[in-house]
Amino acid sequence: MTLTESASLNPQRSTLNLVDCDVHQEISSWEDLRPYLGPAWWERIGPKGPPFGRRAYENVRGHIISEDMINPATGKAADDPAWVKRELFEKHGVDLGILTSNILSLSSHPNVALASAVARAYNDWTLDKWVRPHPEFKGSIIVNPQDPAFAVEEIERLADDPGVVQVLVFSGSNEPYGRPRFFPIWEAAAHHGLPVAMHSGGETVGIAPKDTLAGPLTYYVEHHALQTQSAMAHMVSLVMEGVFERLPGLRFLFIEEGVSWVPHVMWRLDKDYKGNRSECPWLKKLPSDYILEQCRYSTQPIDEPREPEHLVQVLEMIDASRTVLYASDYPHWDFDNPKIAFKDVPPAMRERIFVGNALDLYGDRLLAANR
Amino acid sequence: MTLTESASLNPQRSTLNLVDCDVHQEISSWEDLRPYLGPAWWERIGPKGPPFGRRAYENVRGHIISEDMINPATGKAADDPAWVKRELFEKHGVDLGILTSNILSLSSHPNVALASAVARAYNDWTLDKWVRPHPEFKGSIIVNPQDPAFAVEEIERLADDPGVVQVLVFSGSNEPYGRPRFFPIWEAAAHHGLPVAMHSGGETVGIAPKDTLAGPLTYYVEHHALQTQSAMAHMVSLVMEGVFERLPGLRFLFIEEGVSWVPHVMWRLDKDYKGNRSECPWLKKLPSDYILEQCRYSTQPIDEPREPEHLVQVLEMIDASRTVLYASDYPHWDFDNPKIAFKDVPPAMRERIFVGNALDLYGDRLLAANR
Repeated sequence: MTLTESASLNPQRSTLNLVDCDVHQEISSWEDLRPYLGPAWWERIGPKGPPFGRRAYENVRGHIISEDMINPATGKAADDPAWVKRELFEKHGVDLGILTSNILSLSSHPNVALASAVARAYNDWTLDKWVRPHPEFKGSIIVNPQDPAFAVEEIERLADDPGVVQVLVFSGSNEPYGRPRFFPIWEAAAHHGLPVAMHSGGETVGIAPKDTLAGPLTYYVEHHALQTQSAMAHMVSLVMEGVFERLPGLRFLFIEEGVSWVPHVMWRLDKDYKGNRSECPWLKKLPSDYILEQCRYSTQPIDEPREPEHLVQVLEMIDASRTVLYASDYPHWDFDNPKIAFKDVPPAMRERIFVGNALDLYGDRLLAANR
Repeated sequence: MTLTESASLNPQRSTLNLVDCDVHQEISSWEDLRPYLGPAWWERIGPKGPPFGRRAYENVRGHIISEDMINPATGKAADDPAWVKRELFEKHGVDLGILTSNILSLSSHPNVALASAVARAYNDWTLDKWVRPHPEFKGSIIVNPQDPAFAVEEIERLADDPGVVQVLVFSGSNEPYGRPRFFPIWEAAAHHGLPVAMHSGGETVGIAPKDTLAGPLTYYVEHHALQTQSAMAHMVSLVMEGVFERLPGLRFLFIEEGVSWVPHVMWRLDKDYKGNRSECPWLKKLPSDYILEQCRYSTQPIDEPREPEHLVQVLEMIDASRTVLYASDYPHWDFDNPKIAFKDVPPAMRERIFVGNALDLYGDRLLAANR
C-alpha cells in the first residue's frame, strides 16, 4: 500500500498559511520510550537515558530551552501537544509543525546500535503520541547515519506511513555525509520520494571531531556561531562525492543552520571546481547547479543584519523563493517569531518561505491525513 | 630610531594605482637561507629544507604554482624580482607588492624552534634580496605564532626596519588565535603600529587538526573550498576572547580567505552574542563593531557569482570601501587578474580596494623608502 493509496487528503490542510519545519517535541522522561525500546535496551538505557558526551562549554543558561515557553504543569516546553498548539500554533499562526525531536546528539553517540534503537523507539513514540492523534503535526523517520544498514531498514519500515514526511538525520558525525558509507541511506530516501533533512546537533561530542580546522573553542557562543561549519562540510561532501549527481531526485534540507553561509560555499566551490575539474570527473554540472536544485534550508536562526535589505539580498542569492522554508525552532532559546523575523522580506517571497516551498518539498505527504 | 625618523618618503610611491598585498616570493632553493640560518640550524634543515606534513589529498596539478607564470630560466615563477616585476607588475599594472613568502605551512610545524628559525632567516633573506634592492616590494615580519616569546623578539628586532609593513602569521594552528597564549604577539604588533596579516596555510597538516567539524575531507577541491573555516574560527576567537577590545589599535588582515564568509560570521556572531552576553562580559560593543572596525580582507580568491551584482552586495555588506584590499596571489593557480576580477565593482569602491585601503592600513610605511 503506497502513501497515495492509504491516505486521503485532509480537508484541514487546504488552508495552510504557515508551516513550521522545526518543532522540537520532547519526551517527558525516558520512561516514555520504555514500551518501544523493549526490556533489553531498557536495561541498558534506564530511566536516566543514555549518557551523552558533554562539551567543555555550554549555554550560559544551562540549557537550550527558552524559559518563557515552559509549561508550569509539566516543567517542560514541548512534552504536551496541547501546550505546543497553544504556545506555538495559536500565538504565532502556525498551521502545521514538522517534528524534529529532542535527541539531537544522537548521531555522535559511540554506541551505534544503541543510538539506532533510540531512534526507532522515538519514531514509534512520536507517531503514537503526537502525529496520529493530532493532524497539526507531521513526523520524521529519524535514523542514525552511523548505522546505514539499520537506517535503511527503518526507512523501509516507515516510508509508507502517512504520518511521516522526511528522513531525519543529525549533523554530528566523524565523516561528512557525502562519504560512500552513507550512500545507501540517501538512496533509500530518494527511492521512496522522501526528502532528507539534516538537523544541526552533536558537533564536538561523542565520535564527532572536537576541533574546528583551527582548533578548539572556548565559549558556547563561539561554538554556536561556528557550528554551521559542519553543514558546510556535509554540503561540499554531498556535492563533490557525487551523491546529488547519482540521485537527482534527492532533496536535502538543512535545518537550523540558517542561510547566509550558502552563497559563500556555493561560489567558492564553483570557482575551485572550475580550476580542478579532473578531481571529481563524475560531476556533470557546476556545484552550484546541484546546490540550487537539490538543497533546501530552514530559516532559523535567521540572520538579522543591521540593514534589513542585506537579508533579502542573501535570500535572493540562494533563490529563496524556491529553496527556503520557515522554521521556528520552538522551544529553543533562539526561536524565530515569524511575524517579526520576516517583516522586511517581500510578501511573495515570504509566502513561499512560509508555505509554498514546504508544499513543493513534501508534496502530498504534507496534506495527507496522519492515519 | 623610529620608522618616521629613518625613512624618507619615496617619490616613486606618490602615484600608486594598484597595491598587491599578496605576492609569493620564493626561495630558489633552501641554500638561499643557509647564510641566515647559521651552521647549527643548517645541519638540521639541510638542502632539502625541513620536512612538512602532507595531506591525503593534493592539488591535482601536483603543486599550487600556475604553470604559465614559470620563468623558463629558473623553473620557478617567483624566485627572481625582475621576473615578478615583468610578469605581475608590468602585465597587470601593479605598482607595489607586499611579499608573503612560500613557507605557508610554517605555523603547523611540530618543531616550534625550527619554524621560528626558518621565519627569521626568511625575513632577513627577503629584506636583502627583495626589499632593500627593489622599491617595488615591501616585506613582512614573518613570525611563528606557536612560539610567542620568539615572535615578540622578532617583532622587536625588525619593527623599525623601513622595509616591513606588517607582522605576518599563517592560519595553520592547533588553537584559534584569540586564545591567551598568542596575545603577546598581537600586543607587540599593536605597540609598534604594525597591522597583523594572517595568510591562509597549514590547515590539516602538522599540529593542525585533521578534520572539519564533520570529519575529514576526500578531495583537494573540498579542502580548498572549506579552508576558510579556519579564518572564521580565528576571527570569532579574536573577537570573543577580547583581543580587539584590549587592543583597539590592532588591525587584522585576512589574506587569501576571500570575503563572502564575513557577513555570515558577523551576523551570526552578533545574534548569538545578544542571546549570551554574560559569557564574554569584557566586550563593550557588538562583535560586528569590532569586526567592521578592526578586520581587513584581501580580495583573493574573489567570488565570481553568476550575477555580478551579488559580489557588489557582499562587498557592501562588509563596508569594502574601508575594509578590503586587492591581492593577486601571484604566482598561484587561482591568481586574480585585477582587470578582470573587479570589472563590475563600482569605480570608487575599486579605487579604495586597489590602493586607498592599503594606504590607510599601512600608513607611512607603504610610502617609505626601503633602506
